[in-house]
Amino acid sequence: MKVAILGYGNIGKAAEQAVLAAPDMELAGIYHHDDCLSCMAGNIDVMLVCTPTREVRTFAAVLASRGICTVDSFDIHGQIWSLREAMDAVCKTNKTVSILSAGWDPGTDSMVRALLQAMAPKGLTYTNFGPGRSMGHTVAAKAIPGVKNALSMTIPLGTGIHRRMVYIELEEGADFKTVEAALLADDYFAHDETHVIPVDSVDALNNVAHGVNLVRSGVSGATHNQRFEFNMEINNPALTGQVMVSCARAAVRMRDRGEFGAKTMIELRPIDLLPGTTEENVKALV
Amino acid sequence: MKVAILGYGNIGKAAEQAVLAAPDMELAGIYHHDDCLSCMAGNIDVMLVCTPTREVRTFAAVLASRGICTVDSFDIHGQIWSLREAMDAVCKTNKTVSILSAGWDPGTDSMVRALLQAMAPKGLTYTNFGPGRSMGHTVAAKAIPGVKNALSMTIPLGTGIHRRMVYIELEEGADFKTVEAALLADDYFAHDETHVIPVDSVDALNNVAHGVNLVRSGVSGATHNQRFEFNMEINNPALTGQVMVSCARAAVRMRDRGEFGAKTMIELRPIDLLPGTTEENVKALV
Repeated sequence: MKVAILGYGNIGKAAEQAVLAAPDMELAGIYHHDDCLSCMAGNIDVMLVCTPTREVRTFAAVLASRGICTVDSFDIHGQIWSLREAMDAVCKTNKTVSILSAGWDPGTDSMVRALLQAMAPKGLTYTNFGPGRSMGHTVAAKAIPGVKNALSMTIPLGTGIHRRMVYIELEEGADFKTVEAALLADDYFAHDETHVIPVDSVDALNNVAHGVNLVRSGVSGATHNQRFEFNMEINNPALTGQVMVSCARAAVRMRDRGEFGAKTMIELRPIDLLPGTTEENVKALV
Repeated sequence: MKVAILGYGNIGKAAEQAVLAAPDMELAGIYHHDDCLSCMAGNIDVMLVCTPTREVRTFAAVLASRGICTVDSFDIHGQIWSLREAMDAVCKTNKTVSILSAGWDPGTDSMVRALLQAMAPKGLTYTNFGPGRSMGHTVAAKAIPGVKNALSMTIPLGTGIHRRMVYIELEEGADFKTVEAALLADDYFAHDETHVIPVDSVDALNNVAHGVNLVRSGVSGATHNQRFEFNMEINNPALTGQVMVSCARAAVRMRDRGEFGAKTMIELRPIDLLPGTTEENVKALV
């Protein structure tokens, strides 16, 4: 299958490596998100939309309207359903498939949450993130007046509660106490335990490691105290890029079977993410 | 949906509890596996085949030939593909769906293995079982001459290596050393570290707790050292019965969409395992 990439930041570069490592894929082009859209209408099966998340909706809709499958890692949880509704209509009209929010959260964590819910329908699941950089909180910290550069680390405290460790490089002449007060009052930080630490170089702290500890205790049938845990310690863009590439395979397979529409990862069959035949995968994995 | 149960041992009883707890199911009958098969041809959507594993093939084929969906927890890993081939043909002819090997291993562990393979395609996955009772090894131990009752516990040592702790109640007049030697020479035990312990009452040790520690270290794209771990500590028949019931829901949905055939769990969409609408589940879990 011919796979192209739109956007060449951390995720686009990681996706490129995953396409090159896939036994059943050909890298059919890398496009920057200011390239002309008509250049992308070539002979490709699927486009990995690796643009900033707020630009996903526009690009995905245009590509799908040309019958090209798309995969994105749209990560604004509260807007996924509306994106799915809009893309589903475009995909069905144009006989193609879009896979939305293909990353690790939303994405593979969502599949694990769905599976644990099926294994123990009553109970509580907690998704604990980190330690790792929060992109949203880092952007919010950078927007505080007097901040030259920032890094917001998410530290898991259990039961879905997180500590924010915010490392900031001040602008020349900025007052640390003033910056700290403004940051602690920001809506992104006001609800969590937050520590602000001045540093000489944020760049020296840069690390794309991340982690998850996803825990469920629940009830199977009438039996309580069924306990489940999913952990990972990963390079964040490498995993996101890989998950998008595995979803590209699923998108093309679904298109080829005539299963048109927009889907999130909990709506995918795990086997469709993998190269090889059904027989090979059933024998190796079941 | 109308769900019936065939076989009323540990798994059948647990499945009954899970059906009664499901908001979208009606328990449509419990059949013993020596009941007449024609009694089971009533108005049911799906039969949970909770018979001993070696009887699954016959019952599932007869039920599918009458257009009834089936779910089983067939657990002989090396024979799953041939069961799938046989059942797939029967299901397609009779426009129904069979879900095979629906339990936790094979079953939900298989889904986790497939997902981790998609997240890090190169690498090694180790499935470590226990501590918990191994049914196969317990049956093998009970078959040794001089053994009145036995319990074989599986203890995980990591990297897929297991210790066997075998508790045996001797028959009157049997010699422990002779029994121990015969057991250690049995093919079920000869390849693992095995300890044989005489006890007064095997029944006093009875506990259906089990566990899994499934570990993968692999490569996403070109990035090594991506680490994943799935753990559970569960009541074994309760989880197996619940997974079968969740798969019953998927079977009926697939039948209603015209997706006839036999499937293993890695071929199912996680969302099909859950009650509720697509919108509800996407909003809650993605």
